[in-house]
Amino acid sequence: MNIYDEFKKVKNASLTLMHLKSEKKDNVLKKIADLIDKSREKIKSENQKDIENGKRLGLNKALIDRLLLNDKRIDSMISGVMDIVAQDDPVGMIDRGFKRPNGLKIYKVRVPIGVIGIIYESRPNVTVDAAALCLKSGNASILRGGKEALNSNRILGDIIKEALVSEGLDDNLVYILEDPERKYIMDMLKAKDYIDLIIPRGGEGLIKFVTENSFIPVVKHDKGVCHTYIDKDADLEKAVKIAVNAKVQRPGVCNAMETLLIHKDVADEILPRLKKEYDRFGVELRGCEKVRNIIDINIATEEDWEAEYLDLILSVKVVESDEEAIEHINKYGSSHSESIVTENYTTAQKFLESVDAAAVYVNASTRFTDGAEFGLGAEIGISTQKLHCRGPMGAYDLTTTKYIVYGDGHIRE
Amino acid sequence: MNIYDEFKKVKNASLTLMHLKSEKKDNVLKKIADLIDKSREKIKSENQKDIENGKRLGLNKALIDRLLLNDKRIDSMISGVMDIVAQDDPVGMIDRGFKRPNGLKIYKVRVPIGVIGIIYESRPNVTVDAAALCLKSGNASILRGGKEALNSNRILGDIIKEALVSEGLDDNLVYILEDPERKYIMDMLKAKDYIDLIIPRGGEGLIKFVTENSFIPVVKHDKGVCHTYIDKDADLEKAVKIAVNAKVQRPGVCNAMETLLIHKDVADEILPRLKKEYDRFGVELRGCEKVRNIIDINIATEEDWEAEYLDLILSVKVVESDEEAIEHINKYGSSHSESIVTENYTTAQKFLESVDAAAVYVNASTRFTDGAEFGLGAEIGISTQKLHCRGPMGAYDLTTTKYIVYGDGHIRE
Repeated sequence: MNIYDEFKKVKNASLTLMHLKSEKKDNVLKKIADLIDKSREKIKSENQKDIENGKRLGLNKALIDRLLLNDKRIDSMISGVMDIVAQDDPVGMIDRGFKRPNGLKIYKVRVPIGVIGIIYESRPNVTVDAAALCLKSGNASILRGGKEALNSNRILGDIIKEALVSEGLDDNLVYILEDPERKYIMDMLKAKDYIDLIIPRGGEGLIKFVTENSFIPVVKHDKGVCHTYIDKDADLEKAVKIAVNAKVQRPGVCNAMETLLIHKDVADEILPRLKKEYDRFGVELRGCEKVRNIIDINIATEEDWEAEYLDLILSVKVVESDEEAIEHINKYGSSHSESIVTENYTTAQKFLESVDAAAVYVNASTRFTDGAEFGLGAEIGISTQKLHCRGPMGAYDLTTTKYIVYGDGHIRE
Repeated sequence: MNIYDEFKKVKNASLTLMHLKSEKKDNVLKKIADLIDKSREKIKSENQKDIENGKRLGLNKALIDRLLLNDKRIDSMISGVMDIVAQDDPVGMIDRGFKRPNGLKIYKVRVPIGVIGIIYESRPNVTVDAAALCLKSGNASILRGGKEALNSNRILGDIIKEALVSEGLDDNLVYILEDPERKYIMDMLKAKDYIDLIIPRGGEGLIKFVTENSFIPVVKHDKGVCHTYIDKDADLEKAVKIAVNAKVQRPGVCNAMETLLIHKDVADEILPRLKKEYDRFGVELRGCEKVRNIIDINIATEEDWEAEYLDLILSVKVVESDEEAIEHINKYGSSHSESIVTENYTTAQKFLESVDAAAVYVNASTRFTDGAEFGLGAEIGISTQKLHCRGPMGAYDLTTTKYIVYGDGHIRE
């Protein structure tokens, strides 16, 4: 098999999607949801093969859990697809439009990107989410999942292809790239004539490899080193509630807080209250010297300020001013989600303007950075880079623009 | 000199630009325009050194001409900067805003990208255009010009720095990277902690090198293989005017037409008329067999369909249908600018939807794809890729977005 011939088929298929009606795309998605529902037993039995292989290969419990497709997770795949059906079709939305003095009418219209290559790891539900979001936004997709999920991804891919064919569409619109020997990633990254965008989803090593080797534009879903800053003018009730929620509500995700910054004027009062709460949830605290003068915890080192724990661990630092907080965040943060707790209007505005991140909050938990919470519908990831899109990335962000220009024999003088 | 220490200074300086008032930025730009005007003699004498070096090194006439700064070109640099002053400040524009059912208020606001690295070749006016556009959009810039323009770029850089300092700003906001030995390009492409976007402007070799080696997102200004398709329902008067304008008005630029497609039903009538016009302007025509059955011209080979001539040469093909025209364009075009000439409403809409390019026209010359013609003000290039921005790239496209979220003690359940 020449993999570039395969990619070329996908590219050609993608051209047929450019002017497909929204209704048609939604019908395919509904069909996918329906077929997943009808194929539960088959999906679970194929998934079981992956689970058994995984156990044989000695995958740890967390990885096995991520692989698992049970009825509850199948339900959630189905409702995920139906959520995408419910979203507005971004294709054809007009971002801007104007008439020039010479009479030319110019419209900046949203159009599909083309072919999107997604490189992901163990969770098989990504296969369905990604295919559905790409179809909704008029894109073909090349889905290169992890080898642990080979059987699950194959059956889900078969279902998607069946849905495409049953609606009279080309089944090359979703290409499931089986790559148990990891030999096609580099081919994908170099296939600039056939793939328009690469989205890596996975560990730091994968993201780095993709960023450093791709000839194709990449939107990455990278790590989240998120902060909460409790200002001297904070409402301490809100502060405790937000700082606890940001850490403990789901510590293993990218929008959870990893470092808490506290203004020196309120440190004495709030730190003991926070410690009591964090102790209840079993959070390990690591602090700077000033924090350790107030509560008895371990010391935080330089590595702690840089760490994405994804766990019940929190580094805590006392700062002299909001400027110091902003400086710390811009130095150590990963430009994901950052929050200030304050009742002071001017300090809030300064923080919002000066902190460089995808999402900046006042008086709210960083845990809200999420496609569904933002009302954008399902997301294909959270972009931590600045180009193309930033923050939760939904169907809209899987489109680009085209200028459409209506003339009447216009020539340039 | 450790180049990364230098880049770090630029990155730090860029943070000070994030919440600078539009007025302040415009004052710097006005100062730049003013200082250029006052330093004409100095600029011309420094430029003369580059011209003499260039002649000594045997640069061809076209390159020497691109290097030259005379009074007329200095005037146009000044008016270019004043055009940028006149543009709206994109920073702070709100792309979207909504209130969630839980009361969170979310705004998607445009913010600077950070540090923009521009790698360009001989024209020294790019130094001023690029610095001004970056400042307007709140970005610091690292400008790595060509070695031929070393003295010109240095004096222009000094002027820009003098303007920054006179307005009390950090002169690291515009960093002129002198690189006569071509040793810093790779350092720029790997400096992902300090540079947020790379824009290459130059020949195909440079663009390819940058695309294949950058760890940083790239927006490229690549070649333009633009088409005009004369449909069977074209108004032939308009068709001749447009097809001639798109080729001859300025053949050396990326939005000039390189291939003309003609529907078989009108080929007999229009080809002799076109040939007469093209002959007047000294255009060399190369055609397919069907064209050569009607007019006596050279044959076009496969290479002609792929060529960006940037010259008074045109390849011409007769097609059987609008589908064949669309297919040809999607196969050979460079996704830059494509035009159909037709009076048929449905054919026009089909062409607009099916052709994949940055700008698609009905009844107008492809020569209009340009920041100023589109009313976007000065442009830093024309993006031929799909991510981030597509088509003429002005100050707006040098910004990204940030979600600003106002809560009132919101936590996620």
